[in-house]
Amino acid sequence: MKVAYLGPAGTFTEAAALRYDPSADLVPCATIPAVAAAIREGAVEKGVAPVENSLQGAVTDTLDVLIHEDGVLVHDELVLPITHDLMGKPETRLDEVRIVYSHPQALGQCREYLQRHLSKAEPRAALSTAAAVEDALRSDVVALAIAPRRAAEIYGAQIMAEGIQDNSNNATRFLVLARQDHERTGEDKTSIGFSFADDRPGLLFSVMKLLAERDINLSKVESRPTREGLGQYYFLLDLVGHREDAPVRDALEQVGELTSMLKVFGSYPRTP
Amino acid sequence: MKVAYLGPAGTFTEAAALRYDPSADLVPCATIPAVAAAIREGAVEKGVAPVENSLQGAVTDTLDVLIHEDGVLVHDELVLPITHDLMGKPETRLDEVRIVYSHPQALGQCREYLQRHLSKAEPRAALSTAAAVEDALRSDVVALAIAPRRAAEIYGAQIMAEGIQDNSNNATRFLVLARQDHERTGEDKTSIGFSFADDRPGLLFSVMKLLAERDINLSKVESRPTREGLGQYYFLLDLVGHREDAPVRDALEQVGELTSMLKVFGSYPRTP
Repeated sequence: MKVAYLGPAGTFTEAAALRYDPSADLVPCATIPAVAAAIREGAVEKGVAPVENSLQGAVTDTLDVLIHEDGVLVHDELVLPITHDLMGKPETRLDEVRIVYSHPQALGQCREYLQRHLSKAEPRAALSTAAAVEDALRSDVVALAIAPRRAAEIYGAQIMAEGIQDNSNNATRFLVLARQDHERTGEDKTSIGFSFADDRPGLLFSVMKLLAERDINLSKVESRPTREGLGQYYFLLDLVGHREDAPVRDALEQVGELTSMLKVFGSYPRTP
Repeated sequence: MKVAYLGPAGTFTEAAALRYDPSADLVPCATIPAVAAAIREGAVEKGVAPVENSLQGAVTDTLDVLIHEDGVLVHDELVLPITHDLMGKPETRLDEVRIVYSHPQALGQCREYLQRHLSKAEPRAALSTAAAVEDALRSDVVALAIAPRRAAEIYGAQIMAEGIQDNSNNATRFLVLARQDHERTGEDKTSIGFSFADDRPGLLFSVMKLLAERDINLSKVESRPTREGLGQYYFLLDLVGHREDAPVRDALEQVGELTSMLKVFGSYPRTP
């Protein structure tokens, strides 16, 4: 099976794609919209993208693809613990390091370590943890990168320190995207997004009331801008149950009448 | 008055700080936590940081400072329209450009323009729009930057194209932070954050019910991770009214009993 993922090789998303299907024919994509396009156009069957990190919060590019693009649904999810390693050219001395490259999320997740051990080095943003390793290895000044262990193998970097993230509760939830969502398993969740014609977030209360009355639990509430102006939001909910379960089906019908736009992103098995 | 802001000079936040107090003695800070620290330690009286963009959504560093740090409250807010310009060394030819530097948010806001006019150039992340201009000017390969007009003046870059953002509804809301929030004006809003002992976002419904029963309107609903594990959130609400208004004071007392943590980030005048 061909599986697209937010690449390049050596990122956590590649690790998630391999975990989802160890025998997959992996296709790296430069952006999350490119992963969605590969699925929509039939170049791949599935695609893997991060959606939420336990420290940094939502991966907004993935939410925005679900909201603004058609032809791509959520088919499954998986959760991976995140461990950041410090790596670079062999025999680099920590006290000589001037730049630490990584994806801004990884830099944010290692902020305390950097302040304690590399306070003289400038944190510098890279477009991915893998690109950070390349940047560090080809840098003219002494530089290191923060990246997953696998990136060191791929790019021939030496690991200087392991597990340097500030918080051990560091995990990322990934979505498996496809042209269809998942059939009912009996232990499912459903992701939806909606907005209101007038910009009153208070209407969210009415939607939550509909769900509460039917004993439908929520596992996530997010908001994203509609891009129409400040203060106008899409609300994104994850609710327990499959869209084919009677209470969920009934609730979604009612929610559709309250909202100006309702999009069901997909039903899929709940991760334990 | 000394006013800290998320710098360096030439960023939109500098423009917001100048708009807030044209005669301020401006103090650039490298990060939003550094802005908060300058206020808390008394080095400045106020600080300006972006909190929300109409296209990209929340500025999570600012939300996280409100949630996780003490001694800093929201004192005021202001909204600025955002216009991105393309700039670089004089006489750069667009068809020779290999790299376009900017802050990831600005790159995201100009994605369509870049795909249409600079599809052969690689978008590359910089830590600020101002740093992007410096990166472009000192680059060995042909490079441009996306930044505010003022950055071109400061760094001596030439503007190649104006207003290249994909969406004209591009505005950013900035918070003015201080050691105290704002006295009651009669046209106020209040920002609060809370979490629940067990990780059921459905409890958010109970909080919204308390507010709805008192006719307190919401102008924003956000969630941020608690950093305790996936699926555990702080909820951030902006509600209409000052914390000293009787219905708001009463509602906040009740909300405090439902939640395991309630933090009032401050009351301040509503931007029309």
